[in-house]
Amino acid sequence: MEARSISMLGTGLIGEFYTMTLHSQRGRDRVKVAYSRSDDRGKAFADRWDIPAYTTSLEEAINHPDTDTVVVGLPNFLHQEAIGLAAEAGKAVLCTKPLASSAEEAKRIVDTVESAGVFAGYLEDLVYTPKTLKAVTAVQGGAIGDVTWVRSRETHPGPHSAWFWDADKAGGGAIVDLGCHCIEIIRSFVGKGNRPLDVMCWADTLVHPIKAEDNAVALIRFESGAIGQFEVSWTFRGGMDLRDEVAGTEGTIWLNHFLRTGYEMYTSGGGSGYVAEKIESEEGWLFPVGDEVSELGYVDMFSDMFDSMESGTDPRETFYDGYVVNAIMDASYRSAESRQWEPVDVEWRGGSTPRIKKHVKTHDGHAIVKEEVLPDGRRKLILSDKDTGSIFDVVT
Amino acid sequence: MEARSISMLGTGLIGEFYTMTLHSQRGRDRVKVAYSRSDDRGKAFADRWDIPAYTTSLEEAINHPDTDTVVVGLPNFLHQEAIGLAAEAGKAVLCTKPLASSAEEAKRIVDTVESAGVFAGYLEDLVYTPKTLKAVTAVQGGAIGDVTWVRSRETHPGPHSAWFWDADKAGGGAIVDLGCHCIEIIRSFVGKGNRPLDVMCWADTLVHPIKAEDNAVALIRFESGAIGQFEVSWTFRGGMDLRDEVAGTEGTIWLNHFLRTGYEMYTSGGGSGYVAEKIESEEGWLFPVGDEVSELGYVDMFSDMFDSMESGTDPRETFYDGYVVNAIMDASYRSAESRQWEPVDVEWRGGSTPRIKKHVKTHDGHAIVKEEVLPDGRRKLILSDKDTGSIFDVVT
Amino acid sequence: MEARSISMLGTGLIGEFYTMTLHSQRGRDRVKVAYSRSDDRGKAFADRWDIPAYTTSLEEAINHPDTDTVVVGLPNFLHQEAIGLAAEAGKAVLCTKPLASSAEEAKRIVDTVESAGVFAGYLEDLVYTPKTLKAVTAVQGGAIGDVTWVRSRETHPGPHSAWFWDADKAGGGAIVDLGCHCIEIIRSFVGKGNRPLDVMCWADTLVHPIKAEDNAVALIRFESGAIGQFEVSWTFRGGMDLRDEVAGTEGTIWLNHFLRTGYEMYTSGGGSGYVAEKIESEEGWLFPVGDEVSELGYVDMFSDMFDSMESGTDPRETFYDGYVVNAIMDASYRSAESRQWEPVDVEWRGGSTPRIKKHVKTHDGHAIVKEEVLPDGRRKLILSDKDTGSIFDVVT
Amino acid sequence: MEARSISMLGTGLIGEFYTMTLHSQRGRDRVKVAYSRSDDRGKAFADRWDIPAYTTSLEEAINHPDTDTVVVGLPNFLHQEAIGLAAEAGKAVLCTKPLASSAEEAKRIVDTVESAGVFAGYLEDLVYTPKTLKAVTAVQGGAIGDVTWVRSRETHPGPHSAWFWDADKAGGGAIVDLGCHCIEIIRSFVGKGNRPLDVMCWADTLVHPIKAEDNAVALIRFESGAIGQFEVSWTFRGGMDLRDEVAGTEGTIWLNHFLRTGYEMYTSGGGSGYVAEKIESEEGWLFPVGDEVSELGYVDMFSDMFDSMESGTDPRETFYDGYVVNAIMDASYRSAESRQWEPVDVEWRGGSTPRIKKHVKTHDGHAIVKEEVLPDGRRKLILSDKDTGSIFDVVT
Repeated sequence: MEARSISMLGTGLIGEFYTMTLHSQRGRDRVKVAYSRSDDRGKAFADRWDIPAYTTSLEEAINHPDTDTVVVGLPNFLHQEAIGLAAEAGKAVLCTKPLASSAEEAKRIVDTVESAGVFAGYLEDLVYTPKTLKAVTAVQGGAIGDVTWVRSRETHPGPHSAWFWDADKAGGGAIVDLGCHCIEIIRSFVGKGNRPLDVMCWADTLVHPIKAEDNAVALIRFESGAIGQFEVSWTFRGGMDLRDEVAGTEGTIWLNHFLRTGYEMYTSGGGSGYVAEKIESEEGWLFPVGDEVSELGYVDMFSDMFDSMESGTDPRETFYDGYVVNAIMDASYRSAESRQWEPVDVEWRGGSTPRIKKHVKTHDGHAIVKEEVLPDGRRKLILSDKDTGSIFDVVT
Repeated sequence: MEARSISMLGTGLIGEFYTMTLHSQRGRDRVKVAYSRSDDRGKAFADRWDIPAYTTSLEEAINHPDTDTVVVGLPNFLHQEAIGLAAEAGKAVLCTKPLASSAEEAKRIVDTVESAGVFAGYLEDLVYTPKTLKAVTAVQGGAIGDVTWVRSRETHPGPHSAWFWDADKAGGGAIVDLGCHCIEIIRSFVGKGNRPLDVMCWADTLVHPIKAEDNAVALIRFESGAIGQFEVSWTFRGGMDLRDEVAGTEGTIWLNHFLRTGYEMYTSGGGSGYVAEKIESEEGWLFPVGDEVSELGYVDMFSDMFDSMESGTDPRETFYDGYVVNAIMDASYRSAESRQWEPVDVEWRGGSTPRIKKHVKTHDGHAIVKEEVLPDGRRKLILSDKDTGSIFDVVT
Repeated sequence: MEARSISMLGTGLIGEFYTMTLHSQRGRDRVKVAYSRSDDRGKAFADRWDIPAYTTSLEEAINHPDTDTVVVGLPNFLHQEAIGLAAEAGKAVLCTKPLASSAEEAKRIVDTVESAGVFAGYLEDLVYTPKTLKAVTAVQGGAIGDVTWVRSRETHPGPHSAWFWDADKAGGGAIVDLGCHCIEIIRSFVGKGNRPLDVMCWADTLVHPIKAEDNAVALIRFESGAIGQFEVSWTFRGGMDLRDEVAGTEGTIWLNHFLRTGYEMYTSGGGSGYVAEKIESEEGWLFPVGDEVSELGYVDMFSDMFDSMESGTDPRETFYDGYVVNAIMDASYRSAESRQWEPVDVEWRGGSTPRIKKHVKTHDGHAIVKEEVLPDGRRKLILSDKDTGSIFDVVT
Repeated sequence: MEARSISMLGTGLIGEFYTMTLHSQRGRDRVKVAYSRSDDRGKAFADRWDIPAYTTSLEEAINHPDTDTVVVGLPNFLHQEAIGLAAEAGKAVLCTKPLASSAEEAKRIVDTVESAGVFAGYLEDLVYTPKTLKAVTAVQGGAIGDVTWVRSRETHPGPHSAWFWDADKAGGGAIVDLGCHCIEIIRSFVGKGNRPLDVMCWADTLVHPIKAEDNAVALIRFESGAIGQFEVSWTFRGGMDLRDEVAGTEGTIWLNHFLRTGYEMYTSGGGSGYVAEKIESEEGWLFPVGDEVSELGYVDMFSDMFDSMESGTDPRETFYDGYVVNAIMDASYRSAESRQWEPVDVEWRGGSTPRIKKHVKTHDGHAIVKEEVLPDGRRKLILSDKDTGSIFDVVT
């Protein structure tokens, strides 16, 4: 196993989380140079994380001779430029979410890295939470049958950096910031090869004095008939609500990644110290998570990225996935505007997925709708008449 | 306080729950006659609940001289006829959900009871669960500010009686069976005077061999800007999932009425006995509720109905509410077909509700988007430029 | 079913809860006279609950001609006197917990009502919570096999009335106030006929400036080998913690009666109004219960008491049970002093309970300690050698 | 940062977990040789984890030229020998729990490594769960005031290897297997410098055909007045129950490490695959954890050990801690026998801890027992009379 040497572009909250992850535990990989638009912030960051160099030059950071991997932790309107430079430098490039501001831009980015032949990974951390990884494996193993519906919810009181709130820079609001996570979680459960057909989306600006949407809900219809549902909000009160629910023909999965994970604390407020990301208060009942960078997926995400580089395989999340996410977000915005279902416009590479199967048993030729055992032990069958389709029951 | 004497129409699961409630604890009200389409089931029911009379004649049950109140626990295609007879008899009439198969029929039913001048109550039990009652009071008291979003979810593996599954008889599937509950829960939280404007609905038949939808999700847009979201399914695995979530500008409410209420039991399967409605297994981890008729709202519902009769006031749930529910369900079906938002067509009596208020503070004339306290104690303001609307931040 | 007419002795928090319960829903029973030591409080109470009469004379309240039942909601040092007067009056008497200040006094009270031949019920509400009733039925039905251990925990930040805190008046502290509940919950699960043999108890005054214990933990050893464990505290922070856990040879039960019951609310503090008993704050994350008098057992308790009076049977909780509770509390105090197990000194009427059964299967004559299925499908047996008792394993 | 090279002694469940942890993610440390008593198991283990060498000779494994660190994952009756050899070899040694079969043996082991001057770490993983680490930090930061009580519970249906069940080999039963975890969790919360004074313990063999205890509960009294309570069982049904509760004068902490961590799954049983350690079933409602080796503390534990070796500091858990644990377990067994509190016999190095402070405020010279705000806004004080100690209240 080789050690990776990293150029970290961006020293905001996400650069902080990335570096904390890379430098935690007994990992072999290290950040060797940090890029910040501000000299002060770059220096402070390098000091804090024991990084040997920092710079305010994007080119310099990317082309630094000691690094082999570029991690893009910049606002999304800067992704295309940074990825282009990394591709030119022939270095592996990992980019934070969302990949781009639109599917069109995302497609150009995909083309860039594919032409250059460099390794490219999409840093969609929430697909890598230990719970999600285990649940996706369970679903792929058949534990809940065919997936019929996935709800992915990410809501909190709003982001920390100004550019997120600026629709012109970010390319949107809560959908761009949070919906991208939900979309990949949904795709991971319904199957990456399950084509997203169309989207119905509601979005509104209910609370904040901004142009971007601060609340949105969307339904995504997949080829199998499964429905994905994302709920995003910048007006949630009570902390950060990250929950996923998956329904299948043979089971159900409920995941809670942040607010109810088995750590509950009441405090009258006397103590001090960081409790959790986006917490609203430091007294009363609080719900910390144990190890944030692990619970939020950062640890497993970087392991997958670097292991994939070494083995020469695709990581779980590729730039193509990022492009599909942008395409679904584009359809969401169109639908919020047109007030009807809008098709997902994407160059599809994922193949075809059959319709969810109805395993219908019959009784005397009539389809069995439901089967119950009565208290007296007899069996009650609710049947659909084979000729008329009308429903009746028999007790046997 | 007077005791009420009741004609119970219908001896299926709902008649069972109603009578169990009325005859439980130390209540003064009693069922005096039961109507069933089957003589055998009528007799068994009367024996089981110590009811002095039973009959297979609808007229006889309704006009029974010992009763003053008619409870309609029949399939919904029989409601109009039964309510018409009760109105003619000049008796108080309480009708199970949904009120009718369509808004048009519901409106005729409303007109019938209003012309006759009889007391009419809509037996929407889930609005009366103790948790919902308390939460609605908290919301009305301002505990969570303006309501922005309500999710109401009711899913289980499907109903017990054949007619529910027959779209021709029931007038639909999971929406008609379960969505009616969700709609009233949503209306209770956003406010009964908050006009439902339009509906966007997805519905599909994914698993069962029936014509009716076995899964649906809908968004309801209200005059204030608030969004209601109902999720219904007859294919849920794991029991009966009854949950509500309410988001407001100042808070959040999460209610779980059935599967996670503080009673958790693991059993290797040796025991015996009824655990809960629509449970799927009698071994492994089970999640019973304490007292079902109380937790599902039946006790408080009948108390409200009878207390309202005595005090001459409207109950919490009226036939007009039932009519609004039918109108929203009608719009849901139209939307599932047209694949776009559809207006709710209703004769509105509820007045007008203003838009959710944005309480915007300013700094130097710029709107404050977010305010954070930094670790070093300084205050960071994210501001929207008063002239350009672009977003920037200052630290003070 | 007859209606009961009640003399309510005491207008403090417990009298309030009792009357709220009796006058709630559609109940037929009513309080006809209230006794308070203070004329002002008596009048306010009678006004609040629409009670026709009140008095500061204990005799007058008990002998009031319109009542047939006396409910004792007084501090425990007044129970003996009140019960004596009720017995003389030949009226049914229901007494709040604990029955007396010591087993000796409790025994005299039992003798008094038994000599007088009046109906006597012990108002131990927490045994009647809907969850406890259902769980006890499940245990009696064999759902978790033989009970091996019961934990009952009741803790909160301390009672509201001064006399509770005064060891001289109350006869103790948190054990007397809260342990009595736990003991009956434990007995209900291990079986009322399962003799409590001895008790080991730790008690201390850790936080409050009082002589009575503000914290205690005790183990109660029963004839079957089962262990009961009670945990009581007047120094708990975060609300009122009422939880029970039951372990059996075939299963497990976890009950949460108050702080986690499926109702979760975050509020920034803008609203107003009563949330729950012994809550510590009105902002942040709060955990109300739906209907307190139902969830805390009051409704089912009075139904059982009055139904038992009518049917001439013993209620679930008798004065004899109250006496056993006092005997176990006496042993607890002795043990806290002597620092060793102390026998429970009680005139036992409950018969005998056999030792928890070991259902030992054998393999080649050796007892099977554990049986596991290995990943490759083979069966691994951990065995106890029939001659030496040493443990070894075989794979078959 | 250096990479460590490890001799892994033992290839059972614990060796499996240790190696899985060391070889997971992007860690730099590696197992270079494995020791097993069985050649077959050694070979299979080395193959499974890609370990270059294995042997059935303890000496050979310990003295292997490529390793600098010995990890002892053997049954506890072999610890002393293995640690002795490692000390002779001058290598760092890390030993699984419990350190020894008795305090006497543990003390000899401590003396051995201290004489040899080698680094020695006690592999008590559950003190290192991410939740425990964060909660201990919160407690040390004052978030819950002075700790008054800690409950640590570890129960499951029994261990996988024969020797655990053999009291002669293991030196006991569930206390030795599980109580050692609980004791260190308790000590971490009350403070390592808080001397354990005495222990009261109940133990019994209720279910299994063995001599060792299969159930035990103990109270540990610390110098500050705080109480630790451990509950261990090999007869729990429903999975593995790992929970801790901490009460303090200013707050409360509840940790759930395994059965309720925000991952809930219902499955009808169709899928396949490993769900979690000590699970009882693969259908119905299941409660997996995300990443077991992280959630159970193994990752943070080895990081702390190796980081401490490099920095030349003591790890969080030392052999001295293991010795204190053995001393407390010895007192537990003595107490279970003598049926009274037994002193903890230990050579104490931890200094002294003052009694939990009572922060008593006064009113007119009387100590304030409780302070409440009445609904009408007035303040009610419950006071302890400065002369008599009797309790009374005033409203101000």
